[in-house]
Amino acid sequence: MHSFQDFTIQFEEQFNVRQFPFHTPPLYDAAEHILDIKGKRIRPICVYLANEMFAPVGDDAYHAAAAIELFHNFSLIHDDIMDKAPLRRGIETVHQKFGENTALLAGDVMLVKAYQSLSKISATYLHRSLDIFSKTATEVCEGQQLDMNFETKEQVSFEEYLNMITLKTSVLVASSLELGAVLGGAGLGNQEHLYEFGKNLGIAFQVQDDYLDAFGDAAKTGKQQGGDIIANKKTFLIIHAREYCTPEANAVLDELIKNNPTNKVEKVLQIFRDCKADQWATELKEKYYNIALKHLDEVAVLSERKTLLRQLASDLMMREK
Amino acid sequence: MHSFQDFTIQFEEQFNVRQFPFHTPPLYDAAEHILDIKGKRIRPICVYLANEMFAPVGDDAYHAAAAIELFHNFSLIHDDIMDKAPLRRGIETVHQKFGENTALLAGDVMLVKAYQSLSKISATYLHRSLDIFSKTATEVCEGQQLDMNFETKEQVSFEEYLNMITLKTSVLVASSLELGAVLGGAGLGNQEHLYEFGKNLGIAFQVQDDYLDAFGDAAKTGKQQGGDIIANKKTFLIIHAREYCTPEANAVLDELIKNNPTNKVEKVLQIFRDCKADQWATELKEKYYNIALKHLDEVAVLSERKTLLRQLASDLMMREK
Repeated sequence: MHSFQDFTIQFEEQFNVRQFPFHTPPLYDAAEHILDIKGKRIRPICVYLANEMFAPVGDDAYHAAAAIELFHNFSLIHDDIMDKAPLRRGIETVHQKFGENTALLAGDVMLVKAYQSLSKISATYLHRSLDIFSKTATEVCEGQQLDMNFETKEQVSFEEYLNMITLKTSVLVASSLELGAVLGGAGLGNQEHLYEFGKNLGIAFQVQDDYLDAFGDAAKTGKQQGGDIIANKKTFLIIHAREYCTPEANAVLDELIKNNPTNKVEKVLQIFRDCKADQWATELKEKYYNIALKHLDEVAVLSERKTLLRQLASDLMMREK
Repeated sequence: MHSFQDFTIQFEEQFNVRQFPFHTPPLYDAAEHILDIKGKRIRPICVYLANEMFAPVGDDAYHAAAAIELFHNFSLIHDDIMDKAPLRRGIETVHQKFGENTALLAGDVMLVKAYQSLSKISATYLHRSLDIFSKTATEVCEGQQLDMNFETKEQVSFEEYLNMITLKTSVLVASSLELGAVLGGAGLGNQEHLYEFGKNLGIAFQVQDDYLDAFGDAAKTGKQQGGDIIANKKTFLIIHAREYCTPEANAVLDELIKNNPTNKVEKVLQIFRDCKADQWATELKEKYYNIALKHLDEVAVLSERKTLLRQLASDLMMREK
C-alpha cells in the first residue's frame, strides 16, 4: 500500500505542470496563478486512498483527483471575488492581480477543465462519476449562497450553520472519497460509508478550524488570533454563544459587533469561555470525528486497508494549525 | 421530417419548466430569471435538425440541446456581469436584479446543470459529446477574454476580430450542429462539414448583426440605430473603415470617439459609406454564407434532408432584425 506521501508525490508529478495553454492572455495566466498557490491536496489524495482500499490505483483515479482539485480551485477563485478577498495564503488573489472580469472567466475555464479531466474516466465509471461530481458541485455553490446570506442574517441557528458548512466544505471531501471508492469498484454500501466518513470528518475539521481561529496558538496557526471575531464571521462558537450565553452577554456581543473596539477579541473570547463554548466545540469535534470513524469501521474491507484514512483523520483532528 | 416549428415546440415542452429547485433563495430564482428571458432557441434546434439528417431524434438530442441552451444562458449571465449590462432584451439582467455575487453563482450552477444534462447522453456518445462540449465552452470563454481585451486595444485587425467573433459566438452554433450529427450516428466527415457550416453561418450572422446595427431600419430591428457606434464597440465595419478610410477620416473617427458629439452616429455612418464599408460588409456576409452552404452541400445525405438547414441559413441571412 502507498502512503499519503507516496500519493502526494504521484499526484504532484502529473498535476504540477502548466495545465492551461499560453495563448489568450491574461486568461490562462490567471487560472495558473491560483494553482501556484498550492494547498495541502487533501481532496485529490482522498480519491487515491479510497480507491486503493478496493483495487490498485489506475489512470482514472488521477483524472478524478485532478477534476476535484481543479474544481476546488475554481471555487476559490469565485469565492475570493465574492468575498472581495485581497489575499489567499499571503499571496494576491486572482481578481486582485488580474481584475474581476478575468478572474471570473478564469474560474469558468477552470470548471470546464475539471469536467475535461473527469471526462477521461473510462466508460464503466463515467456516468456515475459525472453524477457524483455535478451533484457535489451544485451543493458547494448552494453552500456559498447560504454563507453569503448569513452575512446579513442576524440569527443563524446551529442547524443552519451546520448545513451551510456541510455543503460549502464537507461534501467535496466526502465525494472525493466516494469517487475513489467508485473507481476502485466498491459496492454502493462501501461508497456511502466512505462518503459519510468524509462528510463527518469535514464537519469535525471545520469545528476545529473555528476553534483554532479563536483559541489556537497564533505562533502555530500563523494567523491572527480571533480573525473570525474581528470580521464578525459566523462560526460554530459565536452561534453557540448567542444561544447559550446570558442576555447580558448577548447585549455585550451586540455592542462589540457594532462598535468594534480594540479589545473586542479578548472580550468575545471571555464570553465564549463563560458559556463554555470552547469546551462544547471540543466535544462537538469529537462527536463528528467519532461518527466519521464509525462509518470507516463499517466499510467492508480488511481493517489494515483503513489504516491510512484512520491516520489522516487523526492527523486532521490533532492539528494545531 | 419535422419543421423548425415542430422542433421548437418539442424542445420548449421539455425545457420550459422550472429547471432548478426552490430552496436556497435567491440562487435558483436568479438562474431561472435568465431562462425566462427566452431567446430564439436557434442553438438547441440546430441539435435536432442535424440529428434528424441522419437518424430519428431520440432522448439524447434533448439532453444535448438543453445542455447547449443552459450553457448559452450561463455565458449570458457572466457576460452581462463583465459588461455591466443593466438590461437584456429590455428586461433587467440577473446581476442587476439579484446582485453580482448571486449572479456569479447562478451562472456557475447553470454551467454545472448544463453538464448534468449532457451527462444523461447514452454511453455510446457520452465521451465524444463531452469532448465537443468542453472544447467549445473553453473557446467561448477565450472569445469573451479577447472581446474584453479589445475594449482597451486601439487597433484590432480584421483577423483578430474574426477570430474573437468565431470563438465568442460561432463555435457554439457549430458545435450544436456537430453534436446533433454525432447523436444521429453521422461519420466524422459529415460531423466536420456540419461544424464548418455552423461556424461560417455564425460568422455571416455576426457580420449581418454589425451591419444591421449601423444600417438597419430601427423600426424593424427595435434597437437604436448605431448603438455599437455610440458604445465605441469594435465591429466589422469600424475595423474595415479604420483600415481603408483616408488618414483624414481616421482622424475624424479619433475625434468622434474621444468627444462623443450628438451627431456622432451620422458622421461615423458617412465615413462608413465613404470607404464603402457597407458594401464590403454585404459582400463579406455573402462570402461566409456561401462557404457555409458549400459545407452543407458536402454532407453526404440526400439533398432533401438538408432543406431545413438551408432554409434556416437563408432566413438568418435575409433577416432585417
